[in-house]
Amino acid sequence: MTAAWVAFLTDYGLADGYVAACHGVIARIAPSARVIDVTHEVPAQDVRHGAVVLADTLPYLPPSIVLAVVDPGVGTRRRGVAVAAGEHVLVGPDNGLLAWAADAAGGAVRAVELEHRAGTGATTFDGRDVFAPAAARLAAGTALPALGPELDIATLVRLPDPWLRVGPGAVEAEVHVVDRFGNVALAAGAADLAAAGLDGRARLRASAGEWSAELPLAPSFAAVPAGEPVLLVDSAGRLALAVNRGSAAASLGLRPGDRVTISS
Amino acid sequence: MTAAWVAFLTDYGLADGYVAACHGVIARIAPSARVIDVTHEVPAQDVRHGAVVLADTLPYLPPSIVLAVVDPGVGTRRRGVAVAAGEHVLVGPDNGLLAWAADAAGGAVRAVELEHRAGTGATTFDGRDVFAPAAARLAAGTALPALGPELDIATLVRLPDPWLRVGPGAVEAEVHVVDRFGNVALAAGAADLAAAGLDGRARLRASAGEWSAELPLAPSFAAVPAGEPVLLVDSAGRLALAVNRGSAAASLGLRPGDRVTISS
Amino acid sequence: MTAAWVAFLTDYGLADGYVAACHGVIARIAPSARVIDVTHEVPAQDVRHGAVVLADTLPYLPPSIVLAVVDPGVGTRRRGVAVAAGEHVLVGPDNGLLAWAADAAGGAVRAVELEHRAGTGATTFDGRDVFAPAAARLAAGTALPALGPELDIATLVRLPDPWLRVGPGAVEAEVHVVDRFGNVALAAGAADLAAAGLDGRARLRASAGEWSAELPLAPSFAAVPAGEPVLLVDSAGRLALAVNRGSAAASLGLRPGDRVTISS
Repeated sequence: MTAAWVAFLTDYGLADGYVAACHGVIARIAPSARVIDVTHEVPAQDVRHGAVVLADTLPYLPPSIVLAVVDPGVGTRRRGVAVAAGEHVLVGPDNGLLAWAADAAGGAVRAVELEHRAGTGATTFDGRDVFAPAAARLAAGTALPALGPELDIATLVRLPDPWLRVGPGAVEAEVHVVDRFGNVALAAGAADLAAAGLDGRARLRASAGEWSAELPLAPSFAAVPAGEPVLLVDSAGRLALAVNRGSAAASLGLRPGDRVTISS
Repeated sequence: MTAAWVAFLTDYGLADGYVAACHGVIARIAPSARVIDVTHEVPAQDVRHGAVVLADTLPYLPPSIVLAVVDPGVGTRRRGVAVAAGEHVLVGPDNGLLAWAADAAGGAVRAVELEHRAGTGATTFDGRDVFAPAAARLAAGTALPALGPELDIATLVRLPDPWLRVGPGAVEAEVHVVDRFGNVALAAGAADLAAAGLDGRARLRASAGEWSAELPLAPSFAAVPAGEPVLLVDSAGRLALAVNRGSAAASLGLRPGDRVTISS
Repeated sequence: MTAAWVAFLTDYGLADGYVAACHGVIARIAPSARVIDVTHEVPAQDVRHGAVVLADTLPYLPPSIVLAVVDPGVGTRRRGVAVAAGEHVLVGPDNGLLAWAADAAGGAVRAVELEHRAGTGATTFDGRDVFAPAAARLAAGTALPALGPELDIATLVRLPDPWLRVGPGAVEAEVHVVDRFGNVALAAGAADLAAAGLDGRARLRASAGEWSAELPLAPSFAAVPAGEPVLLVDSAGRLALAVNRGSAAASLGLRPGDRVTISS
């Protein structure tokens, strides 16, 4: 039997001991479990960003217990949940962080509400005190129903879909995520481009606010000279603006939520 | 038999190869040991910060060989030590980094001075060359006395206690640590509040320098509206100033070492 | 049999899910492999910096499959390679990133060109899609020749050697790397100092541009008062400018590529 994998994502950062405390909780409860840290550098309390990174990464992970905590509502009545989806079980706050990942895994099929520990006092670190123990118990072999009462998966919180409009000759989409390299991924994919009748063209027009440029649709950064922009389908299947050996986000001034139009 | 755990904390940062070199040394000497990285983002040479994070995290770790290196005195005659405390053995420089963690583990019960390697030349990386090998040997089963001569635990270096004064109706305490979220933890806990006769009140006054505010004593951030300050008992048991969905450190201008008064 | 070690270095940063996707690919193909993260904070697309960190760290790692990706040429015809060198096999782009590490391991003895996956579309993440799978297959026991056709090791790309000139009474060398602490390592070692007849002196002169200072040649930072500069042989065997409890890079304004002269 292979030991269970735990995939772990938070906005805790790596400078404090919070991530390690959760690792410790897992090690005590499920000593043979192995942890893959997805990232702990989600911007503080940015549930949407965490949801994107988690959903994009999940397809490449082995079957895992996914422990994900970006939780501005800690201490409120928001639920803690464990959600079975495809090969994975996702554990975390029910605030939308998990839903796109569940979609990426094939869709939620079953979920339970985590029963919180008893006790009073501050409840500021549910990652350590609620979610990591639940994930570790699953990794150690506890069955999902033992963690709490089943809930209706239709009630799981979802974030609003990112803005996307596809019409003849134009795809308008929100900037979905910007990565370390400044690549600007839109909430649109190659299929949207095809639906707009824009696939197969060598050059397209991209515009956002007052900025507009004609640029090639190419398979990779290196299709353009250094410093030049390019439109490509990125490693998550999204339309993305990139600058060869540079940062599209910096040179175009684009941020998540901004709207970009791709046209002929 | 479960493989040994090594818990590893430094101020090396993650951008250079220093942390990995130590991981490599451990892997060569104790290949079955498993490492939990506590943090490597302790501010450079900030022994006090490292000591706080280590002591706060240790109670959640499995029984571990703790390798901790924040070592501005590398190359001086400061001792290298290995200290048995509770379930753990702490390895690092004898500069105060380990003492609070030993306290958190139940107190040092035995210690040895590490015998430094022979050889001349630069001695700038004792983490790799002295402390990691010692920790790895312990993880591989070497007994503590084999690492060097026993020393009197009363001589282990301690950092000065953080400033704290509890009187009728007031707790004055130093800012002990600020975390990624800007939560400002004081060197005082719920017991200090009780000793001052301030427990059980719904609202208290906090002041520091020219800043003063009345704020609720609540179990969690979410007890106040977004952007409002709150006093709570944090996940390490300390009184902490926080701002719901914001940074108390930024909005109040507080840093470690600043003094805060809590009163009625 | 001990599980294989994979040593993993990139410029992906830790904020996105790219590193984790590669960890996931490795876990799926070689579930018993264990990964040591060398660093993922190589400055974006800085092949030279990555090559230095990799070569400096490798001697302290256990026999490893080394997966290294700093790859501004992804999507071009630059080769992907796997290079056997000493106890290690190095996998990554053939852009100079691997060559100094191969030297550090005793020299490349055999290499193959990785056969890229079939398929069209964007090719922006060879770390996940080409290099991690190849490294994982090696870690799982696949023999090197199964990964692709053998190539002539004399054709492997090398970065230009860093600038170094040693004459009677003077060593002139490029700044090779600056670490987190601001220590400034030169592309010169103790042997170069001896060749210039400068070894054994207690004090030397260092100059760069308009800056010049006399400073001691000492075994460690602590040989000088806090805030004072010192010349030492660092943990990688290089001549380095350091400031005790401070940053030599910041106080001297030095960056990689700058030239420094050491003289009597």
